[in-house]
Amino acid sequence: MKYLLELSYLGEKYCGFQVQDNAETVQGALCRAGRALFGVDCLVTGCSRTDSGVHAIQYFATISHDGGADIPPDKLPRAINTFLPADISVHAAENVDDEFSVRRAVFGKEYMYLVHNAQTGDPFLAGRAYEYARVLDVDLMNAAAEKIKGRHDFACFMAAGSDISDTARTINDIRVERDGENVMIFVSADGFLYNMVRIIAGTLIEVSEGKITPDSIPNIINSKNRANAGRTAPACGLYLKRVFINKNYATH
Amino acid sequence: MKYLLELSYLGEKYCGFQVQDNAETVQGALCRAGRALFGVDCLVTGCSRTDSGVHAIQYFATISHDGGADIPPDKLPRAINTFLPADISVHAAENVDDEFSVRRAVFGKEYMYLVHNAQTGDPFLAGRAYEYARVLDVDLMNAAAEKIKGRHDFACFMAAGSDISDTARTINDIRVERDGENVMIFVSADGFLYNMVRIIAGTLIEVSEGKITPDSIPNIINSKNRANAGRTAPACGLYLKRVFINKNYATH
Repeated sequence: MKYLLELSYLGEKYCGFQVQDNAETVQGALCRAGRALFGVDCLVTGCSRTDSGVHAIQYFATISHDGGADIPPDKLPRAINTFLPADISVHAAENVDDEFSVRRAVFGKEYMYLVHNAQTGDPFLAGRAYEYARVLDVDLMNAAAEKIKGRHDFACFMAAGSDISDTARTINDIRVERDGENVMIFVSADGFLYNMVRIIAGTLIEVSEGKITPDSIPNIINSKNRANAGRTAPACGLYLKRVFINKNYATH
Repeated sequence: MKYLLELSYLGEKYCGFQVQDNAETVQGALCRAGRALFGVDCLVTGCSRTDSGVHAIQYFATISHDGGADIPPDKLPRAINTFLPADISVHAAENVDDEFSVRRAVFGKEYMYLVHNAQTGDPFLAGRAYEYARVLDVDLMNAAAEKIKGRHDFACFMAAGSDISDTARTINDIRVERDGENVMIFVSADGFLYNMVRIIAGTLIEVSEGKITPDSIPNIINSKNRANAGRTAPACGLYLKRVFINKNYATH
């Protein structure tokens, strides 16, 4: 039996989604909760590998088991939540075909990068935002963001060590908004390279700092050289906000 | 030298404001940070005793020392924050007379009680809201809140074990608001009794549950009997939101 779960989690205490040896992960917590609930080992697959410390406002995962307890999907969220820590919560569940692949069903994602832009830190955002004191120039950042929009080879925004060969992606929307002391960078794309949003966030912050001009963005993209982009902003400010998923998508 | 500090803190990891033996408190953290910054022992006094797990969006405290480093007030927040954990942050500081008493200078406070009202928990509100699944009837709660407003003897909303004799207080404003899955109870008064907001929140929730009617509120207040009011809502949902302070107030 296979279920598609919609969940959210605070990434602060987790070494990302994917199971690792000797480190607590969201997948590990879901596997343990699944075993406690269904009484048998479960297979958990996530829609995206989030890094250590990254949060998910919306996330999809499948959980499947052979011969475990038969829990109706509408009862599953509250049932599995009793076995999950409070910083992970399943909100909805439905049965899917055994062939359903959550990774292949995803056709786009939206991330939010949150900066708390003030002279003094916000205790309520500790581990949940990048604390940055110098006043960010949102207009200038948006002028640069405008030049990132569209389909490009984004190798310049990919962290070293990634073995992906096709680095072309389509950014459908990218914008910077201020709400009081909070500055949010929203990036929506059909797919993301390793550390892409954090490098874009760091680049836009360097635009505000005057280190990079909006007009130089096309050259940075064309260079396909990571060294020409800005720094990688810290993981704690990154939120997976929306996952665009085709629930009728099967593997074949 | 004496400073008035404006600060905020996430109460999740603290046993309240006031120093206790063998328990971490906000006052304890401020004393240690003051010692590290000024190089001498400091005296820290808070505007209010918050309970274990209660948060403060706005809080005032004084910190004073004899013969320690002379730090200009405008430099003090960022300087002392380097010695404070990220869940406590000082936002402003000013010099005050040695006679200034932060407790006596306070003439009112506003608290917010936050309920996350949904079938499944919000990981981003773990330790920061009361998770309550049954749909709250905000209109009915407001009808009851209307009858709490004004000057009354609020002994019915005071936890046992308090040795206060004058239990009359003036509630200037009390209202319940819904923002999506979040229900917020705001209570503004000239002073508060022990656990008063948490008992009011629990009473309004019992009004929503049909256990207490809005029309019975005057009788509950007149009874002056804690047993007639509702339960005490958990500390994690309580926020000290605003402190009304007269900065020109001295002790004599």
